[in-house]
Amino acid sequence: MIIDCHGHYTTAPKAHDAFREAQLKHFADPSQPLPVYPAISDDAIRESIETNQLRLLRERGADMTIFSPRASTMAHHLGDESVSQAWTRHCNDLIARVVALYPETFIGVCQLPQSPGVTIEHSIAELERCVNELGFVGCNLNPDPSGGHWNGPPLTDRAWYPFFEKMVELDVPAMIHVSGSCNANFHATGAHYINADTTAFMQFLEGDLFGDFPDLRFVIPHGGGAVPYHWGRYRGLADMLKKPPLNEHVMKNVSFDTCVYHQPGIDLLFRVIDIDNILFGSEMVGAVRGIDPTTGHHFDDTRRYIDSLGLSAQDRHKVYEGNVRRIYPRLDAQLRARGR
Amino acid sequence: MIIDCHGHYTTAPKAHDAFREAQLKHFADPSQPLPVYPAISDDAIRESIETNQLRLLRERGADMTIFSPRASTMAHHLGDESVSQAWTRHCNDLIARVVALYPETFIGVCQLPQSPGVTIEHSIAELERCVNELGFVGCNLNPDPSGGHWNGPPLTDRAWYPFFEKMVELDVPAMIHVSGSCNANFHATGAHYINADTTAFMQFLEGDLFGDFPDLRFVIPHGGGAVPYHWGRYRGLADMLKKPPLNEHVMKNVSFDTCVYHQPGIDLLFRVIDIDNILFGSEMVGAVRGIDPTTGHHFDDTRRYIDSLGLSAQDRHKVYEGNVRRIYPRLDAQLRARGR
Repeated sequence: MIIDCHGHYTTAPKAHDAFREAQLKHFADPSQPLPVYPAISDDAIRESIETNQLRLLRERGADMTIFSPRASTMAHHLGDESVSQAWTRHCNDLIARVVALYPETFIGVCQLPQSPGVTIEHSIAELERCVNELGFVGCNLNPDPSGGHWNGPPLTDRAWYPFFEKMVELDVPAMIHVSGSCNANFHATGAHYINADTTAFMQFLEGDLFGDFPDLRFVIPHGGGAVPYHWGRYRGLADMLKKPPLNEHVMKNVSFDTCVYHQPGIDLLFRVIDIDNILFGSEMVGAVRGIDPTTGHHFDDTRRYIDSLGLSAQDRHKVYEGNVRRIYPRLDAQLRARGR
Repeated sequence: MIIDCHGHYTTAPKAHDAFREAQLKHFADPSQPLPVYPAISDDAIRESIETNQLRLLRERGADMTIFSPRASTMAHHLGDESVSQAWTRHCNDLIARVVALYPETFIGVCQLPQSPGVTIEHSIAELERCVNELGFVGCNLNPDPSGGHWNGPPLTDRAWYPFFEKMVELDVPAMIHVSGSCNANFHATGAHYINADTTAFMQFLEGDLFGDFPDLRFVIPHGGGAVPYHWGRYRGLADMLKKPPLNEHVMKNVSFDTCVYHQPGIDLLFRVIDIDNILFGSEMVGAVRGIDPTTGHHFDDTRRYIDSLGLSAQDRHKVYEGNVRRIYPRLDAQLRARGR
C-alpha cells in the first residue's frame, strides 16, 4: 500500500467557506446574522474530492490519504474560543463525511479548537470526540495559534502536558502544523510553515519532552522544515547543549514527511534521516499546485522523487506504509480489521 | 585567496562584555552607575584573536575574514535607541581595532544601531561612519530588531527604503542577520537565525524590492536558511504568485553563504544554487563549536566540505574569492590597492 500521511481538504465545497466568512462577520459585528451551517450534499463532497484529491491520488498511484481540514484556514487567531470551537467541529465533521464516502481511501485527522491564550486542555474534548466517535487516527497541533506572533509557550512547556497525556492515552500522534499567518513578515506557506517545523524541532532538542513522554509521537511536516539541510548544525547544537545524540533524544518520537518538492531535497532527506523516521507525504492539493517546468510533473508529486531513489523493497515499504502504520496505530488497526 | 564572508567577534575581551552588562544595568535602574567604556589594550585584542579566529583561520587554510561584531549580542531589543547607539558604536570601533591590528586578515562589517520601533533611517549615520571613516565594506541588517517578536515591517516595506538607498549609494551589501532571541519559542542559533534567513528570502520572493533597487545586494547566511532544501517549493511559489523565475526575480541580488555544517547539506547547496550565488563562510567561532564525531573535524570547518566537492578551478575561485569581491566591491578595492 501507498499511504500519504499529509493531505488537507483544501477543496471543500464553497458553502463551507461561506459559513466561515459569515461566522467571522458575525463575530466582528454581532448585528450581522449568526449563520447556520449549511446543508452540504454528498454529491457536492463527492465532486470536490473526485475532481481533485481522488483523481490525483489515482493518477499518482497512491492508495490512501490521512486527511485533515485545510491547514491555512484553521486560523485559530480569528474570532475567539467559541468561534474556533464551532468552526473546528464543522471542519472535522466534514472530514468525517469524506471518510464515510471513501472509507478505503481517506482516514481522518482532526483540527483542534485552539485559540490564542486559551489552555490546550480545552482541545481535549474535541480530540476525544474525533478519535472515539469519528474514528480519527491523529490530530494537527498548532504550535502557534496566534498566527505568527508566537506569544504562547513552547511545546516543551508544561502547559501542553495535559493534551500530551491525552494523546498518549488515546495512542494518537500529532502533526505539528501552523495555520495562516496574520504577521506580514511571514508568508504562510513560504515562511510560517517551514519556520514552525524548524522551531518545533529545536524546541524538542532544547527540552526533554520525550523524557517525560516516552510514547508521545509527532510528525514534523514539510520534510522537517530546515532541519535535514542543517542536520550537522543540530547534531552540533545537541552536543553543545549537552543533550544525547539526536537519534536518542528526539528521533525516537519525531518523524518527517516527504513534502519537499524537488529531487535534490528528497535526496538529502533520505541521505541524512533514518529511513524509520520518514513518512510519505505530498500535501496534495496544497501549497504548491503547479507543474515544475524542469521536470514536466507537478512539484508536489513527491512519489516520483522517492521512486527515483532506488530504495530497497524493505525501505520502500517503510516509507510508503510501514512507518505510518507504526506511528498511527489506530490507522493500522482499522486496516487490519479490513484485512489490509 | 580564500575569504570567509562570515565571521563574528564572539571572543571579544571580557571588559567589552562587562561594559554591556553595566550599560544594561544602568538602563534598568538609572541609580546604577553609567559605565565608561573601558580601556582595552592591543594585547588583549591580540590574545583574543590569535588564540581563536586567527589560529583557526590558519589551521583551516583561509586567508581573510569579513569580520563583524558578535551577532547574538547586538541584541537590539535590549535597552532603547540610545543604548543601542552607544553599544553599536563601541562594537564597531572594536572591530576597527581588530582590522587595524591585522589588516591583511580581517576587514570590517558593521552592526547597526537598530531598535524596535525606531526608523531604520537612524542607522544611516553609523553605516556612513563605518564605511567612510573606518573602511568597513558592508553591514549586518537585522530584519527583526524585536528579538523574535517580528512586530516590525517586512524588508520589502518602504520603511526600509531610505537605508537601502544609502547602501546602494555607498555600494555596500548587507548580510541579513538577526540577533539573540527574547522569545522562548525560538532558540537563537537553532531556530531564530534559520527562520530569519528563510523569512527574508520569502519576503523578497513575495515582493518586488529588486525592481525598485536593481543594485541592492544581500547575503543570506547559514546557507540560505531552509531555502535550498525547499528550492522546488520556492520555485513553485514564485510560479503561483506570478513572479518571474527566482534566478531573475531574487537571485540577481541575493547570495547564500556556506554556513551549513555537514557534507550532505553543502552538497545540496551546490547542487541547486548557481555557483555565482554562493560565498564561502564558516561563522567561525560561532554557533556550533564542537567536533563532529562522524568526521573528527569541527562542524564549522566548512572548507573541508567544499573541497570535497571536486569543483573546477573556476568555480572554486568564485566561491572562495571571486563572488565575495564582486558583492563587496569595497573589499575588492582595498585588496587591489594592496596588489592582491
